[in-house]
This record gives sequence, C-alpha cells and structure tokens, in this order.
Amino acid sequence: MRGRGDRLAALMAERELERLLVTDLVNVRYLTGFGGTNGACVCGQEERFFLTDFRYTERAEAEVEGWEVITVKDDWLGGIAERLKGKTGFEDQQMTVRLREKLEEKLPDGVELEAAGGMVERLRRVKDADELAAIAAAAELADEIWVWSLERGLAGRSERDVARAAEARIREQGAEPSFPTIVAAGPNGALPHAEPGEREIGAGEMVVFDMGAKLDGYCSDGTRTYATGEPGDQARQVYATVLEAQSAALAAVKPEVGGEELDGVAREVIEAAGHGERFGHGLGHGVGLEVHEEPRVSPRSENVLASGEVVTIEPGIYLPGELGVRIEDLVVVTEEGHRNLSGRPKQLQLVE
Amino acid sequence: MRGRGDRLAALMAERELERLLVTDLVNVRYLTGFGGTNGACVCGQEERFFLTDFRYTERAEAEVEGWEVITVKDDWLGGIAERLKGKTGFEDQQMTVRLREKLEEKLPDGVELEAAGGMVERLRRVKDADELAAIAAAAELADEIWVWSLERGLAGRSERDVARAAEARIREQGAEPSFPTIVAAGPNGALPHAEPGEREIGAGEMVVFDMGAKLDGYCSDGTRTYATGEPGDQARQVYATVLEAQSAALAAVKPEVGGEELDGVAREVIEAAGHGERFGHGLGHGVGLEVHEEPRVSPRSENVLASGEVVTIEPGIYLPGELGVRIEDLVVVTEEGHRNLSGRPKQLQLVE
Repeated sequence: MRGRGDRLAALMAERELERLLVTDLVNVRYLTGFGGTNGACVCGQEERFFLTDFRYTERAEAEVEGWEVITVKDDWLGGIAERLKGKTGFEDQQMTVRLREKLEEKLPDGVELEAAGGMVERLRRVKDADELAAIAAAAELADEIWVWSLERGLAGRSERDVARAAEARIREQGAEPSFPTIVAAGPNGALPHAEPGEREIGAGEMVVFDMGAKLDGYCSDGTRTYATGEPGDQARQVYATVLEAQSAALAAVKPEVGGEELDGVAREVIEAAGHGERFGHGLGHGVGLEVHEEPRVSPRSENVLASGEVVTIEPGIYLPGELGVRIEDLVVVTEEGHRNLSGRPKQLQLVE
Repeated sequence: MRGRGDRLAALMAERELERLLVTDLVNVRYLTGFGGTNGACVCGQEERFFLTDFRYTERAEAEVEGWEVITVKDDWLGGIAERLKGKTGFEDQQMTVRLREKLEEKLPDGVELEAAGGMVERLRRVKDADELAAIAAAAELADEIWVWSLERGLAGRSERDVARAAEARIREQGAEPSFPTIVAAGPNGALPHAEPGEREIGAGEMVVFDMGAKLDGYCSDGTRTYATGEPGDQARQVYATVLEAQSAALAAVKPEVGGEELDGVAREVIEAAGHGERFGHGLGHGVGLEVHEEPRVSPRSENVLASGEVVTIEPGIYLPGELGVRIEDLVVVTEEGHRNLSGRPKQLQLVE
C-alpha cells in the first residue's frame, strides 16, 4: 500500500498542497489498510502519519503498512493539527462544519486549510490486482447465494423472507450484505427502491432481486429479474428490451468511453422500445470499498472510463402498478473492453 | 409526533431562530417518523416542512405525521433553501463543509445560517411512553438471546461463532444488532473493544458478552460477563468489585444527579479495590434511536439526569493479559430512582 501514499503525494504536488488530512474512514482504509472505526491520515511528500487512539494501537500496528502509527492520547484534534503544515488539504465532503471550526482553533502558525475532497476517491477508481480479486470473490459469493435462493423457491414466500434468508446466508459465509437486499415482486418491482415487504410472491410474477456481498472490505453488486412461471407477453417484451439494452451497453464498455455516452447506449434501446420515461435512474456506478463510488455512468456523468475500473451496468424498465425488470452485471474495464464478474445466466429464467 | 415539532420550536424561540434546518437522519426520524434514507426538515414557529425525493414520496406520506411532505424534484439544496428564512439554525455537527458551502450559494436574501447542532438531541434525551416501550422490547429481545446463547454453550466455540450466532438470532426475530456484538474471552476480555476472533473459548475463562438489539428503530445495550466453569479467586474478586460498583451506581440513579457524580460513585468502589487505573471508560451513556446518545455518564460529563432518560450503567475492570469483567444494565431514570430494563441475573454465573 506504500504506492498509494506516493500516488496521493503526486496528486497533492499538482495542487501545491504540503499536507493532506484524510478523515474519511474508507479513504483511510484504502491508503493504510486500517479497518477500525477511528483513524486519520496526514500525508506529505515524504511524511506518512496514521493517527488513532489507544483502543486501536495494537490493531493499527498489525494492519497499517507504510505509514507511521501514532496513538493520540487525549487531544485528538491537537494531535492531528500539530502534524499539519503550510497549505493543507482536508476532505470537505466528509468533515463536518463543527469539526472544521474546532480544528481551526488548534492549527499551528502558517497552516491554512483548503477544501480538497475527492483526491483519494480519484485514486480509488482504478483497482489493482488484489482489489480486483477481492471484488471478484464477493461477486462469486453473491452468485452462489442466487443459486441457493432459487433452490428454496421464490413463489409463496414473502419478499422479506427471501431477502432475509439471502442476507443470513451471506453472513454465514463470512461476508455481509453490501447494501440492504432488494426483493421486489410484481407491482413492487416498479418501485426502484422498494423495501422487501410481507407481500407473498405470486405465480407468474417478475421478481427483481438486487443483492451484493461485502467480503474483506470489498463490495459486489448485481441484479437478476426472475419470473415465477410464465409472466406473459408484456413482461417478456420488457425483459427482452432490458436485456438488449444491457448487451449493447456491455459491448460498448472500454477505456476512454464517457459515462454519459455509455448510459446513452442503453437508454437509446429503451427509448426505441417506447419506455424512455420508465428508466428513471443512471446506467451504473463504480464499485469497490463502497458499493456506490466513482466513476458514475449516467446522463449527467462527466467521468471517462479507464482500464481497471469496476462498474455496474444495470438498465431497468419500471411500469408503475405492473412490474419492473432490471438486469445488472458487475464488470471490470479492460484494454480489450470488459471482463464480466457476474456469472449468472441472463436469459429469462422461469423459476419456482 | 406533532408535539416534538412544537417542543423544538420552543427551543428555537429561546435562541431567536426563525427556522431550523434538520439534516441528521436520526433527528429527522425523531421529529417526523420518516425512516427512509433521504429526508430533511425545516421547522419554524408555525411551519413544518419535511422534504424528500421521488423515491420516498409514498413512504413519507404513510409515515410522516404533522409535517407537510414536499417532494423535491431536481434541485435538492434549492428546495431546502427556498424554505429558509431570517436567522436559520443548521446542524453543524452533521453538515459537511462542502454541503454548507453549496447551500450558502442557494440562500434567498436575508437568510443567515447559524450553527445550532444539538437541539434535537436535547429533545431526544427524555423518552415518552412509546419510546420507553420500544426500548424495553429491544432489551427483552436481547435478554432472550443471552438465554439462547448460553443454552448452546460458550466453551469450545470461537468468540466469533458465538457472536455471529447471536446476531443471526437477533435478525431472525425481526430486529438487528444495535452495534457489533462483543464476545471476548480470557485475556481478550481486557481489550474493551475487542472484535470477536477465532480464538476458542476455554474452560474456566471469563467471557465478556456485550450485545444490543435494535427493534422498530430503538436500541438496547447490555453486557454480562460469564465464567466457563470455576475462574479462580482473582476473577471472582474482580467480578465482585464490578458488581458492587454497579449496585452502588444503580442505587444512586435519580433525577438531578450529575453524570460526573454518578460515574464517581462506581469509580470510587473500583478505586478502593485498587483497580482505579483499570476502569478506562465512562460509566454509561444515553440510549434511544442511537445506541450512544446523550446524556453522558462519565468523569467529564456536564449532563444532569432527568426523569424519563434512558442510560447504561456499565462499570468494568480490565487486567491486561489476564481478563476483563463488565456488567451493564439499561435503566430508565424515574422520579423514585430508576427502573431496570435488563432482566438477566448478575450474580456470577458458571456456564458451559
């Protein structure tokens, strides 16, 4: 992980920052390997300080690589402030107004804080081999949970029961859900953020099943939509359109393509089928230590994809009061195009 | 919940705030009943606005009571800003530096933001009857999980296995853990924030078992320390001291007592036994929608207890490399003293 601090220092040099204070715990973990709940980093061109409190000294010494571990005793902000110098960036997207005010009071002479949020997030976009392996393992685990869930059947159970059982199974495997599992059947499938409810899944319904696992800190995210028996022509047509949109978008994934452009590839297929108004979210997003991170793949995205980034491709069509269909894969952008980390079949499956 | 907005308006009047913007989601839930993941309130003397986005319109209309539900379409901060007026308080302990800057850009003429974090937290300290019932139900559930866990035995299992099984059981009952369950045996018990590990729990060890359930939004928190067979004289003495300290503190709980003073009651017992240096945390904390909230019961607390507040009483002694003992009850402060929500026995239990 030493390399990560160096890459950060290079970005800092571009902005003429003498120090960067990193307080977002996910960013701290990325830079140092520390997985506890209280820690901060101060990065300079040569200096690498990791600060924590007495509860985590032992853990930090075991986990943190390439950063000097400092245990701050009483005065947390004072311990941070004394390691800042000159023009110092801080993570304005994370630090609260109150904390900033208190930190200002402790600053040594000559230190000036400057909003610099997003620098570590930028580094996090491109994953290294270890990160890709961790994400692939999380995706593989989720794939197993879909298989296991279908073996138990969907129809006749409540959405909540299916979702809870899947989450319990994820935990039994030593992982945790990377977000609350969505199981939304029939008309509930048309609510993109439905919470699984007590409604019993009927026969011949479309069931949106959106799930991710978080394993060793890294997330997966994927969705399949199943039919509990023959769902009828309309559902089949909607499904075919979403699948076509997804296939087109997957074929367009490669380095240098813009997030907005890629979103447009899927959106065009859905618009051509007359459902443009029924695809009310972006096509995808980056996944890594967080289940939603950069880059964004959406109509408003200004991101451009690069090799080594991991994104979801998840078009959907939602017909209010009737049904929803979403198909989501997790892919790595490669020089040649993409590598798909989602292994489950995508032809419409009629299940029990 | 209408009364909560009115109580907040009264606090605002004391500070001459025309509006208060509430962005902390726990505070939003407390005021309005809304349980989703995107919402904010704007409170005036008469005005009660609750804002959310299209995903949550339906849910908000079902859950929110006494506040006008407004769905903001595109410009979230603009939708908030246009409902602010005059001297407007905001939650500086929650709002990020970046969000505040962006909000400033949208403010109508004459609106001036003032840091006012902590006002809703102050209201949340004293619980009403429904809240007390919810916390009691969460505590009762946790009590059942201890019984269930002991039936399965502790010795010969890993700490992690015991903790995971307890958490799975909590979820099966329709609740969730209110914090990561701690199971720390033998020398691990001396690390107050140990994560349950693969170490197998031996015979004759002290096992610190700290657990809480979150049910219908409200948390419980409690700890028992068990012995897996005869633990020896030193462990028994330490246990007796912690229990004596806890009993003394419980007897001292009543309205008007200070958090510092109450902490001192337990600390004095532990100091008299020669373990003053081995009780390295505060005696307790408030519990409600969050597992750690006001009031604080610690050497530095400036809080004074009031009837209807819910606090933990949790002295501990931690002997590095040897063992730890902590005994934690959850109690309601009443006019007469306290009502204990923790039902499990506290005499040292020798278990399997």
